[in-house]
Amino acid sequence: MKLEQVLKALDEDLPNALDRLLGFLRIPSISTDPAHKGDVRKAAEWLRDELASLGFDVAVRDTPGHPMVVAHSQKGSARPLLFYGHYDVQPVDPLSLWEFDPFDAQIADTPNGPVIRARGSSDDKGQLMTFVEAFRAWKAVHGELPSDLVLLLEGEEESGSPSLQPFMRENADELRASLAMICDTELYSDGRPAIVTQLRGLVGEEVIIRAADRDLHSGMYGGVAANPIMVLAEALAALKDENGRVVLEGFYDGVEDLSNQKRADWESLGFDVADYLGRIGLQNPIGEKGRTPLEMMWNQPTAEINGITGGYTGDGFKTVLPAEARAKVSFRLTGKQDPAKVRAAFRAHIARFLPADCSVEFHEHGGSPASVMDTADPAYTSVRAALSDEWGREAAFIGSGGSIPIAGDFKHILGMDSVLVGFAHDDDRIHSPNEKYDVESFAKGSRSWARIVAALR
Amino acid sequence: MKLEQVLKALDEDLPNALDRLLGFLRIPSISTDPAHKGDVRKAAEWLRDELASLGFDVAVRDTPGHPMVVAHSQKGSARPLLFYGHYDVQPVDPLSLWEFDPFDAQIADTPNGPVIRARGSSDDKGQLMTFVEAFRAWKAVHGELPSDLVLLLEGEEESGSPSLQPFMRENADELRASLAMICDTELYSDGRPAIVTQLRGLVGEEVIIRAADRDLHSGMYGGVAANPIMVLAEALAALKDENGRVVLEGFYDGVEDLSNQKRADWESLGFDVADYLGRIGLQNPIGEKGRTPLEMMWNQPTAEINGITGGYTGDGFKTVLPAEARAKVSFRLTGKQDPAKVRAAFRAHIARFLPADCSVEFHEHGGSPASVMDTADPAYTSVRAALSDEWGREAAFIGSGGSIPIAGDFKHILGMDSVLVGFAHDDDRIHSPNEKYDVESFAKGSRSWARIVAALR
Repeated sequence: MKLEQVLKALDEDLPNALDRLLGFLRIPSISTDPAHKGDVRKAAEWLRDELASLGFDVAVRDTPGHPMVVAHSQKGSARPLLFYGHYDVQPVDPLSLWEFDPFDAQIADTPNGPVIRARGSSDDKGQLMTFVEAFRAWKAVHGELPSDLVLLLEGEEESGSPSLQPFMRENADELRASLAMICDTELYSDGRPAIVTQLRGLVGEEVIIRAADRDLHSGMYGGVAANPIMVLAEALAALKDENGRVVLEGFYDGVEDLSNQKRADWESLGFDVADYLGRIGLQNPIGEKGRTPLEMMWNQPTAEINGITGGYTGDGFKTVLPAEARAKVSFRLTGKQDPAKVRAAFRAHIARFLPADCSVEFHEHGGSPASVMDTADPAYTSVRAALSDEWGREAAFIGSGGSIPIAGDFKHILGMDSVLVGFAHDDDRIHSPNEKYDVESFAKGSRSWARIVAALR
Repeated sequence: MKLEQVLKALDEDLPNALDRLLGFLRIPSISTDPAHKGDVRKAAEWLRDELASLGFDVAVRDTPGHPMVVAHSQKGSARPLLFYGHYDVQPVDPLSLWEFDPFDAQIADTPNGPVIRARGSSDDKGQLMTFVEAFRAWKAVHGELPSDLVLLLEGEEESGSPSLQPFMRENADELRASLAMICDTELYSDGRPAIVTQLRGLVGEEVIIRAADRDLHSGMYGGVAANPIMVLAEALAALKDENGRVVLEGFYDGVEDLSNQKRADWESLGFDVADYLGRIGLQNPIGEKGRTPLEMMWNQPTAEINGITGGYTGDGFKTVLPAEARAKVSFRLTGKQDPAKVRAAFRAHIARFLPADCSVEFHEHGGSPASVMDTADPAYTSVRAALSDEWGREAAFIGSGGSIPIAGDFKHILGMDSVLVGFAHDDDRIHSPNEKYDVESFAKGSRSWARIVAALR
């Protein structure tokens, strides 16, 4: 049987596949940092060359931001399958907390087996390469690629994907498929394979509050001049009430309570919040009373301060009343919450805290609604069976607290559903120092895609 | 008359005195930045060499931090006068806001007359050199220095003076004088000469709040894991009530209402808050209802956030739940407020906002009570007359919102009162980019000290 041959080819080629991945990971494609613009393009070109060598019709496609890589195995296929991944990575600061060079990718042995160590190893270069390697093995066995593949590989996922929607709109006919496969998610926490059937949306905002036209001496002006850090702290502290509920006007419009089916599914996962938090040095879940931790993470919206800065932050002390203070704030959205309304409510909230002498400036950093999949589609059953075969355990339908806005974009712009399958572990430290990806995730992930492609043909 | 000759000598030597000051200002003696430790010592040695050339018995005296420069015109004088200044300067960030190199000191012509441009030109190297130049001219005319001078020149004033109290205790007999002259203050805002008769104290604190043992992905953990920035914002926002009153327990213990005499003195100054704030781009004084702006700045305590940082603060956006957040917070104290009690109350306040999973660390950055002088001392009358003669206007008794802790230390450790006289202007931008000192301040300041030394002999 051909599938068995493909799986065998993957196993035999694993050392070479790992070498290819390490080379890819050594390109520091940090999309949010303008200094790495050239590296992001270099990563796109690396993918182009790899895919061209497999026989894909592939190009690096320019956008106003970082480029897209688009590849076809056969243009004009009747019911193509689209595969999505992103080749950009998160910033690495604070660099001092890394135990290894984030861009000198290496394989390391650990008590839990070999791991790939590098920024982007898990999110998302390692995951993206699982389907590329599956296609390589497929071609080696079948003599040609599966006929119905479209690959869309993005370089702006970690910086809000500003070019994605325009690109999808401009190239809708080329990109439209019967189904989108998105490889940017995790195994369930105990290593059980999983399909994510709902994702939170995201609204990102930067707020800058300004007062005097220069930094002031707090001895000379303290007591009469407005302090932007204090104004910002007051406005941000007031985002939540004493029960942890977000107080923005209309914030919970569209948030939906869990269905009984999902509640039962999620309860059956045996989620252990003490273990989940214990692995990051915490013990006590915050969040609203009466809601389970999974509900808080997957089905409830959040307001978080992701960064704040103002005044003197160096060594020692400086008694300054600063001219400005800044914060980066994000909201995770669920159900049918409207990103535009949440953004407007946030801006109105901040404005209410501004004293007469302060001004405020906002910058938008991405906005997308939550995605909730229709799991009645038979493709879900096929993918679930393929995953269950590979991992020897029944694949779970789960939620995710993260935001993969492209799932919503695929639905709204291209009219197609998404199947979210990934092989990361929740200890992969994505977005944190010391990111890793298990070699097992990479190897069995590649095998999983071979099975899924076979099952969906 | 010898005084007239001294004043004439000062006028004639002004170009040389300015050259000396420019050389002194070119030493970047930033005491709060460990990278400039060598420069701080270099500034101390520059002063030692200058004073030695005038005939002072002078030495650079090591401390656990930056050195002191101590000089005597005659050891064992019966009723010495002590002169204090500091040769360290504030940091210069943000450097991008400077219109000139902060350490390439220059004289520049402006519509308001010539100014000395450099970090430290006003605070405090330029002021310190006013009395050094007065002594130089005195010696040129009299053939010898005044017999009763002690100079104490510090290199840690901008970083909390950690070595000052121990040094004063260890050298109390050598430093004790009949009166301390402190040159680190301003003219009144309209250019009227002034003697500061009360100063606010200062408590500086750095607070670090930590939660998870690493930075987290806000998609994976947002909703269940504590966010240290939010905890910090909530605790800091709650420092003041809706009327601007600081809520720390016992905070106002020891704060004293203005005497009728002071209230009348201060009202007679004709302080124009609209003008004062207008020059820094503000219009509306914050502060408690029913208190005048001068009262808020000089006679009321404050709580200010001087710096805050946490999470991702670079370009773009990063949806991180950070492991820690930090703030630098200071309190200006008045009357008999106890710095130790204020510090303890602040720490207790922060602790009350800590969720179970967060820890807190505090660092102390200086603490000193307010200083309120006894202006019945006849020396105040002599100094006031000398200043009034030089400037052609009656010198004012004023307050100051800043903190010159050494005035309190002189009182508590050495049992002597201080006379605070300085020649800075409130547009000198001390602690801010583009610091300057008027050449008039320098020239008439030097002449003022010659008159004061003559009057107090």
